[in-house]
Amino acid sequence: MLGKSDGFDWLDSGECLSLLDTQAGGIGRLAVVHGGHPVIFPVNYVLDQGQVVFRTSAGSKFDAAWRNAPVAFEIDALGPEGREGWSVLVQGRAEIIESADRIAQVESLGLSPWADGDRPVFVAIRQSIVTGRRIRHVRPVG
Amino acid sequence: MLGKSDGFDWLDSGECLSLLDTQAGGIGRLAVVHGGHPVIFPVNYVLDQGQVVFRTSAGSKFDAAWRNAPVAFEIDALGPEGREGWSVLVQGRAEIIESADRIAQVESLGLSPWADGDRPVFVAIRQSIVTGRRIRHVRPVG
Repeated sequence: MLGKSDGFDWLDSGECLSLLDTQAGGIGRLAVVHGGHPVIFPVNYVLDQGQVVFRTSAGSKFDAAWRNAPVAFEIDALGPEGREGWSVLVQGRAEIIESADRIAQVESLGLSPWADGDRPVFVAIRQSIVTGRRIRHVRPVG
Repeated sequence: MLGKSDGFDWLDSGECLSLLDTQAGGIGRLAVVHGGHPVIFPVNYVLDQGQVVFRTSAGSKFDAAWRNAPVAFEIDALGPEGREGWSVLVQGRAEIIESADRIAQVESLGLSPWADGDRPVFVAIRQSIVTGRRIRHVRPVG
């Protein structure tokens, strides 16, 4: 633990990366700013080279947004009333993966293209900040 | 259903509000833009007067951000690999609740102050857009 405060304990970066790793293949929530407004999407993610990687579709209205856009990604496991559990927040910039080798690598981790024919785009989050909290009461403030 | 597309079906606004209502008292994820960067928090929420209401703390670094700030709020229930389930997204502006009567009302719905002595602030989301999808494959694009 890095610190302790009313209602939650900070997790250190090793604990955060461990939680991101053990939950990989599952669901997280991604936030991106679009026209000055935040938007949240559930996404499947994997962890590759220590980075959160998710999949989107070429040509979507958010396609351009992934080019170096600031994004946030969050995973959590919380009790039904949110009074206990943990959350991990990754804040960084989105980067479209161009390397065929790396695309093959993330596909091998479970981010395979969909069957519906969309051309997938793989996006990595260059992590600038990873923080996590073990929560006794959910509180949206730091 | 409002429409159907590869991978998901749009939910109509009645279905979205019904899901927000049945999940109230539980956890959603809130995104706010702070210094141009999105941030995501898990929050407990209730539904009051058709608006999502959550609680924060007076004096936090995000306190001022709630004053008419654009926010997004998302709830979902997704299978472990995200290949089926639903998500509902509320996009609107945050508004601090000033009315003592309404504060008493949202407290009665389950957003009671914490035991740790923080002075709570209640924030409502004036909903401009509520959208929802029933998902066969998680996809972060519209």
